[in-house]
Amino acid sequence: MARARSGARPRPFSGADSALLIIDVINDLAFPGGERVLPWALRMVERLAPLARRLRRAGLPVIYVNDNFNHWRSDFRDVFRHCTRAGSRGSPVARALAPRASDYFVLKPKHSAFFSTSLVPLLEHLGTKRLLMAGIATNLCVFFSAHDAHMLEYDITVLSDCCCAESDADHDLALDQLQRFLGVKVCRADQARTRSTRRPRRPRGGRA
Amino acid sequence: MARARSGARPRPFSGADSALLIIDVINDLAFPGGERVLPWALRMVERLAPLARRLRRAGLPVIYVNDNFNHWRSDFRDVFRHCTRAGSRGSPVARALAPRASDYFVLKPKHSAFFSTSLVPLLEHLGTKRLLMAGIATNLCVFFSAHDAHMLEYDITVLSDCCCAESDADHDLALDQLQRFLGVKVCRADQARTRSTRRPRRPRGGRA
Amino acid sequence: MARARSGARPRPFSGADSALLIIDVINDLAFPGGERVLPWALRMVERLAPLARRLRRAGLPVIYVNDNFNHWRSDFRDVFRHCTRAGSRGSPVARALAPRASDYFVLKPKHSAFFSTSLVPLLEHLGTKRLLMAGIATNLCVFFSAHDAHMLEYDITVLSDCCCAESDADHDLALDQLQRFLGVKVCRADQARTRSTRRPRRPRGGRA
Amino acid sequence: MARARSGARPRPFSGADSALLIIDVINDLAFPGGERVLPWALRMVERLAPLARRLRRAGLPVIYVNDNFNHWRSDFRDVFRHCTRAGSRGSPVARALAPRASDYFVLKPKHSAFFSTSLVPLLEHLGTKRLLMAGIATNLCVFFSAHDAHMLEYDITVLSDCCCAESDADHDLALDQLQRFLGVKVCRADQARTRSTRRPRRPRGGRA
Repeated sequence: MARARSGARPRPFSGADSALLIIDVINDLAFPGGERVLPWALRMVERLAPLARRLRRAGLPVIYVNDNFNHWRSDFRDVFRHCTRAGSRGSPVARALAPRASDYFVLKPKHSAFFSTSLVPLLEHLGTKRLLMAGIATNLCVFFSAHDAHMLEYDITVLSDCCCAESDADHDLALDQLQRFLGVKVCRADQARTRSTRRPRRPRGGRA
Repeated sequence: MARARSGARPRPFSGADSALLIIDVINDLAFPGGERVLPWALRMVERLAPLARRLRRAGLPVIYVNDNFNHWRSDFRDVFRHCTRAGSRGSPVARALAPRASDYFVLKPKHSAFFSTSLVPLLEHLGTKRLLMAGIATNLCVFFSAHDAHMLEYDITVLSDCCCAESDADHDLALDQLQRFLGVKVCRADQARTRSTRRPRRPRGGRA
Repeated sequence: MARARSGARPRPFSGADSALLIIDVINDLAFPGGERVLPWALRMVERLAPLARRLRRAGLPVIYVNDNFNHWRSDFRDVFRHCTRAGSRGSPVARALAPRASDYFVLKPKHSAFFSTSLVPLLEHLGTKRLLMAGIATNLCVFFSAHDAHMLEYDITVLSDCCCAESDADHDLALDQLQRFLGVKVCRADQARTRSTRRPRRPRGGRA
Repeated sequence: MARARSGARPRPFSGADSALLIIDVINDLAFPGGERVLPWALRMVERLAPLARRLRRAGLPVIYVNDNFNHWRSDFRDVFRHCTRAGSRGSPVARALAPRASDYFVLKPKHSAFFSTSLVPLLEHLGTKRLLMAGIATNLCVFFSAHDAHMLEYDITVLSDCCCAESDADHDLALDQLQRFLGVKVCRADQARTRSTRRPRRPRGGRA
C-alpha cells in the first residue's frame, strides 16, 4: 500500500543512463567445476574491482544480481555471509568484490538476472538504458542475462575481462555467440565508455 | 551459475500445498490515509498474529511479501528497521507481526506481490497451490495480488479479519468484488482450512 | 530465428507517443450479466467508433486487445467470426467496432491486457508511452489492465464514455478507484488530448 | 470480461502431459545465413513431419510457436501466407509442415517462445508438463526457448533430428550446451517417448 498515489520517484543518477551489472560474484563456487572457475575468477577480480570503483566515483549505479542460493529470504547479507564462510571456495572473490553501501542488490532464483526479479523496475527507477555486464559465468548466468537484456532492448556491453567461466574455451565461445547472434558489444574494462551519454544539466561553458 | 545442473530442490513442507501470504504489514503507514488504517491494522494484528503462529506450528510456510519502500537492496531487515524506527506510525503493527527465522520474505517494488518478484518460483519451490491471503490494504495490495494469483490459477482464500483498509467501506467493497468477479473465497481466520489437503505420509490405521 | 541480428525496427507513427487500447469489445457477451452490459455497450459504441476514426486519421495506433475465448490459435479473425456469429449477443457491438487493416490485434488469455501477451513489446515497437483506454468492462478487464499499465509506469487515461460495465454503479466505482488509488486520469472522449505530444517532424507554418 | 467467473477449463487431451513445440518453422529464411539453413531444414522436415503426424494421432497437442515477422496482428494465417509467398526461401519447409486444424499457434515477438507470449497459460490449459522441442534454429530460438523452459521447470527433450541450424557445428554445440549445463535431454524423434505418462483411462487388461 505504501506506493499508492506516489508514482514519481527520484532518479538518483540524473545524468547517467548506464549501470554496471555484476552477476553471481558473491558465490561459494561449490558447484561441479567451481574449482576450475576459481583461478579465472581471481584474475577477473583484478579488473572488475577497480572498474567498479571507477564507476562508483563517476556516479554510475553498481548493481549486484546474485543467485539466492536457495535462501528465499530477500537478504543479501545472508547470501554474502554464506559465500564468505570459512571453507567457501569463492570467499576471496566475494570479499574482494564486497558491495558498498551505495550499491544495489537483486537476488535471483534462476540463471537469468531478469527472471522473476525486480531488476527491470530497478533499471526503470534508475533511468538505465545501457548495461555493462560482468560476472560469473560468461557462458551461463552472464550469457542468459545478456540474452534477456537483448529481448528487452537494452543496449548491452559485456566486459570480456570482467567475466569468467570454467575454461577459456567456454568463455570465448559465449562471447563469440553474443556478438555473432545478438549483436552484443564485447570489450575490455579499459575500453568501456563509462561516461554518461546524457548530460543535459551541466551548464555549458561553466567550467573555466 | 550456482544453480547449474541442480534442478531438483527439496520441498521442505512435504505434506503442505498451502501457504500464508502476509502482504505489506511491515509498513510505516506514512502514506496519505495511513492514520486511518492504523486502528484497523491493530485489530487485524489480533487475528493475524495467532493465525501465523498456528500455521507455523502446523508446518505451513509463512511468506511475507512486502513493499521495498524504495530500498532496492534486497534486504528485508533494512525494511523492517525502517518501519519500526522511532516515530514510525506502523511500528506497533510491524513489531507484533515480526517474522520468525523460518518465514520467507519477498520484497516487491509495486502493488502486486507477483509483479517483478520471485514469488512464483518460491511457491513452486514450496509446492504451494493454495494461498491464504492477509495484510494491508484489502483494496490495494491484497486486492491486486489476489487478482494476479487468480490469473495464475492459484486456489485463493482471502482472510477477511486478517486484512484491513482505510475504512470498512473500502474493505468490504474489495472483498465483495473479489467474491463476485473472481470467485475468490473469503472467510475469517478461524474458518480457514489450515490442515494440509495432501497428507500422504500419515500412517494408515493410526487413528483408533 | 527471423529476428537474429535485426534489433532495430521501424517506428511507424513517428510523432506519436500515444495509442488507443480497445479492450474486449469483440465479445459475444455470453457471460452471466452480459445482457445487462449490452445496452451500455451500444451507447459506448457511439463514442468509441468516432474516436477510433479520429485517432486513425491522426496517425495514432489503434490496438485491439481481446480475450481469446479459449481459441488458442493466435487468430483474431476466428475470434471476430465467433463473436459476430448469428445469435451472438455482442454481434452489433463487434460489427460497429470492427478493426481496420491498419489496426493492431493482441489476444489475451486472462483479464489483463498485459498478462502473457505481446502488448509490451508492441508498445515498445510503436514507441508508445501514453495509453488511452476503452472497452468492456470498466470494472474488470479495463480496470485490471489499467492497474498493470500503472505498475509498468505508462501514462494512462481511461475514457469514461468509451467503456462500460453491467451497471452504472460498477462503472462509476471502478473509475473512482482508478482515480483515487492509482492516480489514473479519467475523461470523456471529446476531452482526450489526441494530438501527439511529440511532433518533431511536422514543419512549422506548413498548413496555410 | 468474457472470462469472468469461468475459472475451470476443459483439458482436451485428458491423458497427456506432453506436447510438441515446433519453433519458427513457418519461416521465410530471409535472414542472413538463411540460405545455409535451408538444406538442413529440408532434412529436418523428413523427420519432423511424420513425428507430428504420429503425435496428433496419439492425441498429443502440437503447438507452433512462431516469430510474428513484425506483423503485430495476432494472425497466424498472415504469417503463413507471408512465409509461403512466391519467392520465399522457406516456402517448401513451411508448406511441408503446415499446421492442421487441431494444432495450436502462438506468435512470439522475440527469440524465446516464452517471452511475452501466452505459451505458459496455454500449457497450463493443456495440462502440459513435458515438452518435446523442435524447429529452427537449434542454437537460437530453440536454444533460448529451452533455457526459459528450464527456468520454468518443465521437463524438456530436444529432438536432435527435428531441429537445425546454419551449420552442423552450431547445431551440435547448442545441443551439447543444453545437455552439459541445463541437463536437457536430447534424443532423435524415433527415440522420443511419445506415449503419455499418465494413462488413467485405459482399461487394464485390455492388451492381450
